[in-house]
Amino acid sequence: MDRLDAIQWNADGLVPVIAQDAADGRVLMMAWMNRAALEATLARGEAVYWSRSRQALWHKGETSGQVQVVRQLALDCDGDTLLLQVDQQGVACHTGRRSCFYRVLDGDEWKDAEPVVTDPQTLYGSTHHD
Amino acid sequence: MDRLDAIQWNADGLVPVIAQDAADGRVLMMAWMNRAALEATLARGEAVYWSRSRQALWHKGETSGQVQVVRQLALDCDGDTLLLQVDQQGVACHTGRRSCFYRVLDGDEWKDAEPVVTDPQTLYGSTHHD
Repeated sequence: MDRLDAIQWNADGLVPVIAQDAADGRVLMMAWMNRAALEATLARGEAVYWSRSRQALWHKGETSGQVQVVRQLALDCDGDTLLLQVDQQGVACHTGRRSCFYRVLDGDEWKDAEPVVTDPQTLYGSTHHD
Repeated sequence: MDRLDAIQWNADGLVPVIAQDAADGRVLMMAWMNRAALEATLARGEAVYWSRSRQALWHKGETSGQVQVVRQLALDCDGDTLLLQVDQQGVACHTGRRSCFYRVLDGDEWKDAEPVVTDPQTLYGSTHHD
């Protein structure tokens, strides 16, 4: 059996993928992969996601250089979610913050709990998500 | 604006939720919440998910006692994924392992990388996921 056959893809052929920093356990982002994205990730050793907005493979860091070198790939009990341990080059978030999970609920408000460490303009010029 | 209005629910009215152990950063599981589940989580201070298989609110640990006390709730840049920091009582996984992400890709195979620390029978008797 192919190792990818253990994965329960959803109705769109996708699986959610959590990227966690291998160095200190910070959860960096959540994105999606289809089978081709996972195969590309395994072949390249760097995270390749499926961009649902662009309907295209998305080699994270292709534009910005903020690639994710994959150190470990784990699958959950139901086979429907992946957890990547990655060496994140630079920041993970397109806003220039280290993690995408920078808004923390504080009473009735979401507060920014993480500084912008890289100017997004230097990451992308005029484009959005790399 | 209600704090829940910042969330981008998907077409089914759900948002994926990552639960991370507040003590040491271990990613425990991924599940889903709808608006009612998140409201219940905030009201109770313990994780309440939406069970897609049962189409019902699922107070994690209701049967097994393995509740998740919520310490922090974070939202990602796109507003479409939540990250909970939790104090996990006992194990998170219905298999009796600490984390649901216990299968690690090793060459061509998924290998169990985490021991069963609690007999699932003691958690549930004859039922599945609590």
